[in-house]
Amino acid sequence: MTTVGVIGATGYAGAELVRILSGHRHVELTILTSRQHVGMPFARIYPSMAGGAGGVDMVCEEYTADRICDRAEMIFTALPHQLPMKIIPELVQRGRRVVDLSADFRFREVSAYESAYQPHTAKELMGQAVYGLSEVYAQQIREAEVVGNPGCYPTSLLLPLIPLLKDALLNTETLIADSKSGVSGAGRSPSLTTLFCEVAESFKAYKVAQHRHNPEMDEVLSHEAGRPVHITFVPHLVPMSRGMLTTLYATPARKISADEIRGRITSFYAGRPFVRVCPDDSLPNTLHVRGTNFCDIGFRLDDRNNRLILISAIDNLVKGAAGQAVQNMNIMLGLDETEGLMGVPFPI
Amino acid sequence: MTTVGVIGATGYAGAELVRILSGHRHVELTILTSRQHVGMPFARIYPSMAGGAGGVDMVCEEYTADRICDRAEMIFTALPHQLPMKIIPELVQRGRRVVDLSADFRFREVSAYESAYQPHTAKELMGQAVYGLSEVYAQQIREAEVVGNPGCYPTSLLLPLIPLLKDALLNTETLIADSKSGVSGAGRSPSLTTLFCEVAESFKAYKVAQHRHNPEMDEVLSHEAGRPVHITFVPHLVPMSRGMLTTLYATPARKISADEIRGRITSFYAGRPFVRVCPDDSLPNTLHVRGTNFCDIGFRLDDRNNRLILISAIDNLVKGAAGQAVQNMNIMLGLDETEGLMGVPFPI
Amino acid sequence: MTTVGVIGATGYAGAELVRILSGHRHVELTILTSRQHVGMPFARIYPSMAGGAGGVDMVCEEYTADRICDRAEMIFTALPHQLPMKIIPELVQRGRRVVDLSADFRFREVSAYESAYQPHTAKELMGQAVYGLSEVYAQQIREAEVVGNPGCYPTSLLLPLIPLLKDALLNTETLIADSKSGVSGAGRSPSLTTLFCEVAESFKAYKVAQHRHNPEMDEVLSHEAGRPVHITFVPHLVPMSRGMLTTLYATPARKISADEIRGRITSFYAGRPFVRVCPDDSLPNTLHVRGTNFCDIGFRLDDRNNRLILISAIDNLVKGAAGQAVQNMNIMLGLDETEGLMGVPFPI
Amino acid sequence: MTTVGVIGATGYAGAELVRILSGHRHVELTILTSRQHVGMPFARIYPSMAGGAGGVDMVCEEYTADRICDRAEMIFTALPHQLPMKIIPELVQRGRRVVDLSADFRFREVSAYESAYQPHTAKELMGQAVYGLSEVYAQQIREAEVVGNPGCYPTSLLLPLIPLLKDALLNTETLIADSKSGVSGAGRSPSLTTLFCEVAESFKAYKVAQHRHNPEMDEVLSHEAGRPVHITFVPHLVPMSRGMLTTLYATPARKISADEIRGRITSFYAGRPFVRVCPDDSLPNTLHVRGTNFCDIGFRLDDRNNRLILISAIDNLVKGAAGQAVQNMNIMLGLDETEGLMGVPFPI
Repeated sequence: MTTVGVIGATGYAGAELVRILSGHRHVELTILTSRQHVGMPFARIYPSMAGGAGGVDMVCEEYTADRICDRAEMIFTALPHQLPMKIIPELVQRGRRVVDLSADFRFREVSAYESAYQPHTAKELMGQAVYGLSEVYAQQIREAEVVGNPGCYPTSLLLPLIPLLKDALLNTETLIADSKSGVSGAGRSPSLTTLFCEVAESFKAYKVAQHRHNPEMDEVLSHEAGRPVHITFVPHLVPMSRGMLTTLYATPARKISADEIRGRITSFYAGRPFVRVCPDDSLPNTLHVRGTNFCDIGFRLDDRNNRLILISAIDNLVKGAAGQAVQNMNIMLGLDETEGLMGVPFPI
Repeated sequence: MTTVGVIGATGYAGAELVRILSGHRHVELTILTSRQHVGMPFARIYPSMAGGAGGVDMVCEEYTADRICDRAEMIFTALPHQLPMKIIPELVQRGRRVVDLSADFRFREVSAYESAYQPHTAKELMGQAVYGLSEVYAQQIREAEVVGNPGCYPTSLLLPLIPLLKDALLNTETLIADSKSGVSGAGRSPSLTTLFCEVAESFKAYKVAQHRHNPEMDEVLSHEAGRPVHITFVPHLVPMSRGMLTTLYATPARKISADEIRGRITSFYAGRPFVRVCPDDSLPNTLHVRGTNFCDIGFRLDDRNNRLILISAIDNLVKGAAGQAVQNMNIMLGLDETEGLMGVPFPI
Repeated sequence: MTTVGVIGATGYAGAELVRILSGHRHVELTILTSRQHVGMPFARIYPSMAGGAGGVDMVCEEYTADRICDRAEMIFTALPHQLPMKIIPELVQRGRRVVDLSADFRFREVSAYESAYQPHTAKELMGQAVYGLSEVYAQQIREAEVVGNPGCYPTSLLLPLIPLLKDALLNTETLIADSKSGVSGAGRSPSLTTLFCEVAESFKAYKVAQHRHNPEMDEVLSHEAGRPVHITFVPHLVPMSRGMLTTLYATPARKISADEIRGRITSFYAGRPFVRVCPDDSLPNTLHVRGTNFCDIGFRLDDRNNRLILISAIDNLVKGAAGQAVQNMNIMLGLDETEGLMGVPFPI
Repeated sequence: MTTVGVIGATGYAGAELVRILSGHRHVELTILTSRQHVGMPFARIYPSMAGGAGGVDMVCEEYTADRICDRAEMIFTALPHQLPMKIIPELVQRGRRVVDLSADFRFREVSAYESAYQPHTAKELMGQAVYGLSEVYAQQIREAEVVGNPGCYPTSLLLPLIPLLKDALLNTETLIADSKSGVSGAGRSPSLTTLFCEVAESFKAYKVAQHRHNPEMDEVLSHEAGRPVHITFVPHLVPMSRGMLTTLYATPARKISADEIRGRITSFYAGRPFVRVCPDDSLPNTLHVRGTNFCDIGFRLDDRNNRLILISAIDNLVKGAAGQAVQNMNIMLGLDETEGLMGVPFPI
């Protein structure tokens, strides 16, 4: 039984971590911290989790390194970027292992991080951190002290692309990702753009070709392709709470059949239960992955111009954040990667 | 390990049964039947449940009494009323125990059933069936061969009312229930009134004082109050998928304090984990019970006229249907009533 | 052509005023003020109204009494309560007529206002103001200098109740209003409770028997009934942007038929086009009044206990705010009350 | 005053036609036909439009050529494809002008139509019909007897693309359209896929690179580009009632600046009020065109690879169907093209 703590437990991703970890039979959730809700029972903030066997009976505490290190061996940080880089070095020094859900430890190149975010103050640790795309980097994650948990958008497109990129099956200059995200991705802080009345009956693109997840994607894609890759990335906001669908466009590097594409993806993820390749006559749908750690992948070829259309669906808060973080913890602890993540999904 | 089957597995309530039973560690789900989807893998109808450890790898079969009795000791029927009364007698005769989610076995009085529905063809068995309001009739449910699982609306209002009615604390002539239900209560059959475009931005009452659940409520309320009770019942449709909130109005039979009301309800449900009484400064919200078997109860007194306002929230597909059905099965099998029903709820 | 100005034009009610007044052929909208968006083109805040013949080409200005009095003969104030009472006295002194959408000029009794809100600093003017329930007080509105435009909840229940109360057809001790409102009623200021993720799949009651609109209702009901009336009032929040449905419960003072009820309401509102009494086989639905100034009224009798159920639907931003405000302006200016308010409604 | 009739008035597009035509000051709506609702008052099907000055007091009639020709000079057909080709030839023979909202008269090439739909039985008339993309083909529309009103998807992408294609500014082999539509596009016939519970929290692609609107787009794009063009087209379903957003990807044929792109689009649509080019710091949003005939266009260049991203937003039922149909009628009748279409839009 490993003790675990969540730093920043009251945002949507933090709360999702609390949900998953509370139901995990091989860890004991021992401490939650919050900047805004110190002293507040967690279940007053999220009353769904009040009471009984299925509930969370913990109180939010103020963060101190001592408090968290005294009580937790494994630590999740669910904070805005720039904060984790300040606190994680001490945690690691004191022997704790950390999965960070922010961008602070996702990059290999300091310059890439710094041009997208701001100066990095823990460059050395950044260099040792492992990018937590569980299905692709499990081996490195196993030994990592710090895992930089991927962004939701990168997760949604790297999983379908990497099997094909690794085999040089795609013309890397043709990559386009048109992503659509539910509103929870914007977090729980009140803002005009996420008010119900501004979101309902609204569909829009935002940060077109300027989103901070774009350099994160590019770095991983380039690494996997073995050459510099820039993907055109356009995120959109969907009037729903959870879920992310990414539609990818790419020109194959050579004539390729649907069977071959299916074969490559299927074999790449053989034995990895969270990637589900849709049957031929079916396509991913956010409703089918809601509340789960699955990444559903489907595809079609546009025969008229031999363009490949790859589609993925994830729950942005689960596989796109807290679920993958727990999957990474499972890998780090040598547990089955599905532990705590295999509740039977809801039909609707 | 008890073998269980679901007759009518592909409607929303049936699918919710499949979800819960698939994750239940003390039963083995062995057969699903469907009238429309014979031969179809269940996970093609509900792709969320495809694949892996968290999935359902079963194929829908045609119902025959032999097939179901051969494979299941405990049977759930999730069919439109009038069908269960035709098939359940044979199942019982062959020694099976049944939880029926339709109205066919909910009534004590044949005449009450027949005036709300149509002639009953299994009157004798109806007389032996037990009304499956788990928190109130657990003792009878334990021994029952057939449980008539309560309607969603009756569940939502009987749970808050019964503790007060039993102690004659309410003037029974003043009872009013203003209920609001998510759309899944209307089922999965395509109809104009449940199309997205007809439901979005729509809020309406329907079947005002004429809903078939009204006689069901009246019968139970009368039984518990020990005198004839008719509650004014007005259901409404809410633009959301799951959830039911009922706002009850009643004049106390005598001056009564908030503490006393809280005390009565709390003590009545002591040790019953699925009823959560909200803290004083909080009120039920369908989002807080979504996907759970909880019934949250809150209340306020209108001091100006000493009127009591009781509010309950349930998930209409769980505590209002499949969840309570499994709770009843747990009771029938002598298991802890929470088995299979205590996944940690989602924060949003 | 009367010149009109809107003070507080950028909240949802203010913007709705701008929409309606921009399309009104007998007034000229000459000035918009905003506290937060001084210098900003209105159509940058509400891009729907950008450009062309159907657009609004105005810039938000800072409020000063001079600026507004120089340019507008008729003034709408769409500000939080407590602000209007500070600025309207000067406007009136300078000969302007005002429709105030806040609570500041809705009450007859200063004490009722002050116990619900805070001390009133313009008591004299408050005494002269007219309550702007257009269908009921048109005669007084015609001459008013200041109209206190009714709250959305009071509008939704006063319109169905008053015709019956005036004729003493209801037992006033039995009045209950169960109201359900779309989210726009909470305004445009970012807050946790109106975030999309907190509202979707959520239905809840709030401020049960404690809402500030309750004393407003009580005062008008008492006035119309000729005796003190307190209505039990429970508001709820619906996951939709616009719309309000109120379900009223009352015991008739004597045996009364559906025909008589229909007759009373119909005759009371004869010649008033914004009240539509639903056909016998139909009931109000917020979708049917969306974007309109209509108040749809329907009813049923619960025969078992002779309880009357009255149901009304309005758009909270139109008949519940800006639409009724313009209707009042029309009455004040001697125009047809429907001017600017009779666009053909959307089918969905 | 031109008399107009709507054949197929009770679907969503038909009802939207009724809404717009009822408020149009230069035409008189004289007849509505319906296959399913003969004899039913239109306002019983769409109660929003009941009563008063803003209402529709017409009864749905059965279609016969005599009945419609006797009462209407201008006719709209809002029927499933394959029906219009059977009835329009007779209407034209009797001197009526027709705007058809189906696909039957949208194509130049019979073979293109027939491979996407089924054999065409009015080929001659098809050859004379004009494609009703109002901003592009106004001159031909003016004289047309039959206008084939464009599909919603084609409208949403042709308007942004044509100004650039005409000047050969885009590499036509790189065209991709990722479109997202509200649910009303699927019509009012009950079906599983448009049930509220199947749509809420669901986002999915469908008919990927196989949608029937694809050949329609290709034909127009090819015509405008002066060479064969095939666009990769992927439609998606959004959980909202109305609205369509299309995100287009294209590689410019040469280095091009944002100013030049803006200039081309702006000048192409100079004097056409329904195309609004967004300010530099703003992007299209379906909420901003809801209920309007506007097409909002925005764009960004991905500097890293000089890829152009064009974005458009329309209301699928208005500019994507009924609104553009009325705009075409206005052009055919020599009226201002905005007649009946310039109600001030709602803020939310």
